[in-house]
Amino acid sequence: MNKTVVISVDAMGGDHGPPVVVPGVALAASRAQNGLRFILHGDQAQLAPALERTPGLKGRVEVRHTDTVVAMDEKPAQALRRSRGTSMWNAVESVKSGEAHAAISAGNTGALMAISKLQLRMSVDIERPPLVATWPTAKGVSTVLDVGANVDCDAERLLEFAILGEAFHRAAHGVARPSVGLLNVGSEDMKGHEEVRQAHRILREGRFDINYHGFVEGDDLTSGVVDVVVTDGFTGNVALKTAEGVARFITAELRAALTSTPLATAGAFLAQGALRAFREKMSPDPAAPLLGLNGVVVKSHGGATDKDFAAAIRVACTLARSDYAAEIERNMRKLVAAVGESCPPAADGAG
Amino acid sequence: MNKTVVISVDAMGGDHGPPVVVPGVALAASRAQNGLRFILHGDQAQLAPALERTPGLKGRVEVRHTDTVVAMDEKPAQALRRSRGTSMWNAVESVKSGEAHAAISAGNTGALMAISKLQLRMSVDIERPPLVATWPTAKGVSTVLDVGANVDCDAERLLEFAILGEAFHRAAHGVARPSVGLLNVGSEDMKGHEEVRQAHRILREGRFDINYHGFVEGDDLTSGVVDVVVTDGFTGNVALKTAEGVARFITAELRAALTSTPLATAGAFLAQGALRAFREKMSPDPAAPLLGLNGVVVKSHGGATDKDFAAAIRVACTLARSDYAAEIERNMRKLVAAVGESCPPAADGAG
Repeated sequence: MNKTVVISVDAMGGDHGPPVVVPGVALAASRAQNGLRFILHGDQAQLAPALERTPGLKGRVEVRHTDTVVAMDEKPAQALRRSRGTSMWNAVESVKSGEAHAAISAGNTGALMAISKLQLRMSVDIERPPLVATWPTAKGVSTVLDVGANVDCDAERLLEFAILGEAFHRAAHGVARPSVGLLNVGSEDMKGHEEVRQAHRILREGRFDINYHGFVEGDDLTSGVVDVVVTDGFTGNVALKTAEGVARFITAELRAALTSTPLATAGAFLAQGALRAFREKMSPDPAAPLLGLNGVVVKSHGGATDKDFAAAIRVACTLARSDYAAEIERNMRKLVAAVGESCPPAADGAG
Repeated sequence: MNKTVVISVDAMGGDHGPPVVVPGVALAASRAQNGLRFILHGDQAQLAPALERTPGLKGRVEVRHTDTVVAMDEKPAQALRRSRGTSMWNAVESVKSGEAHAAISAGNTGALMAISKLQLRMSVDIERPPLVATWPTAKGVSTVLDVGANVDCDAERLLEFAILGEAFHRAAHGVARPSVGLLNVGSEDMKGHEEVRQAHRILREGRFDINYHGFVEGDDLTSGVVDVVVTDGFTGNVALKTAEGVARFITAELRAALTSTPLATAGAFLAQGALRAFREKMSPDPAAPLLGLNGVVVKSHGGATDKDFAAAIRVACTLARSDYAAEIERNMRKLVAAVGESCPPAADGAG
């Protein structure tokens, strides 16, 4: 069952590169015993000292040297043109060639999407892999997508996100039948714009292997009413950034309130352990999968610590071991039939 | 300068009716000395005891009896059909007839919109008055619109919201040249969908009397980068409810963290004054104006306290005394010209 999983790592990605990536790899390896092996793509001269400091990785890591990297601030189109042979390109190539079961990078998100799409191709008919957020809720975590990659979404795109998100949530969080909701401005059938209403109608018909809950609203994101929240990349991006902004704002206001008087400051001092635990729960998830590709690619955030990077590796490993690609393919075939019957055919027969 | 302002009040609206509305009116009256008078529409038998308990209102309040009310949970279309002669209808009618300078209700929002639109008509070419949120920020408050009334918005609608929101923010908050931002998923010109990009292009041309900042993102809502944030009713509603959900979630998590150990509980006890001040700052604004009507109508929230209702009356009074209707009309005339040049004319010449 627990076959050995090989993870291909862009060892130069992220704000810190090897000094964070290598300890992250070591941390993930130490927890997974022998079930996990790594191919590290990057500059041998920078990787060697970091690897020397982590003897536990001996025999489980193979280093593939490359001189070039994708810069964190490069535009995706520009990065793509000169990306061949970079640590990021080679990390994804190891998945394409079948040497690795999953690739991981803390580098430039747009470039990783473009490189992954070019090499692995999309398994579904969307322009870009949706960005997935793991959202803290009162009941645990929800999967929210798309949070920014696809700004214009018709009903079919939303249905694809539902299929991708549902399979991901089951694989990543071990929920047998994740519930799925469509983000809207109310819960009644006639609420919202046509795209969201059409997706709602098709999901309610129950042709997919999806536990569809119905519409959810913005405040349901944190109450955890459903496991998976589906929305277009415009609304999802605004919701995610609004939530981050509110969390930052409240933290700052709270800090100001708790140092406003000597009594409050004393109180804050006594409560500091609890406040720290609270901040940790609120911090965003370190890993975002790029869904809908023919292969597993996980993005770890740029400022990831070694612990964050290890957590992102665990997500990549869980996805690589899961059945989620097959589940997605099964539901995607049903989607083609459902949309064909529900929508008039497009004027041109292309695609 | 400070002419007497007459406010027409739906005295039966809201979750509590006269027992909250009348003390709210009294509170507003006591702060405004003699510059404020009221027409209270509602059930004489219910209003009389509340008025007896507030002798300060004597001579400044006229009661207009009516037997019927709009229920809080009625559908707007249904409420509208049987609304003639209700306290809400009559409150708006006093504005139409010129007896009152502004109307206020804590009743059914959808019904208030429908009744106001039918009686006063829209001064601009939008389907429904946008819902306006007053958003707490690191620098004070911002005006955010539309947060739910108009789900589908083209560029022209977004420009109308910019004009309405800018004039409202100046009138309500005394900012001479409020800065205006368009909510988007990034700050570069090519980001977002066509509607938001087109509105951005026209606003940048600088034909309106508007201090246009450019695109803003979800987290800018709380940082207070601009005074007025413009968005469609779908995105705005999701953003607002997401923010409310996150604030509730954080408060609950914080409470749990601060009672998790005896030390934390002691700390929370010492800090309770600061925590209370913090909660008050975070509570939502009690008043939402219905913008774009030929007349001032303000919605106070259904669960308003007497203090909230008094604050909403102050907003109504400020708007009634301001020049905002004329400013809106001036910019609206420029909008017609700007959109005419920027967009191809519609196929049919109607409207």
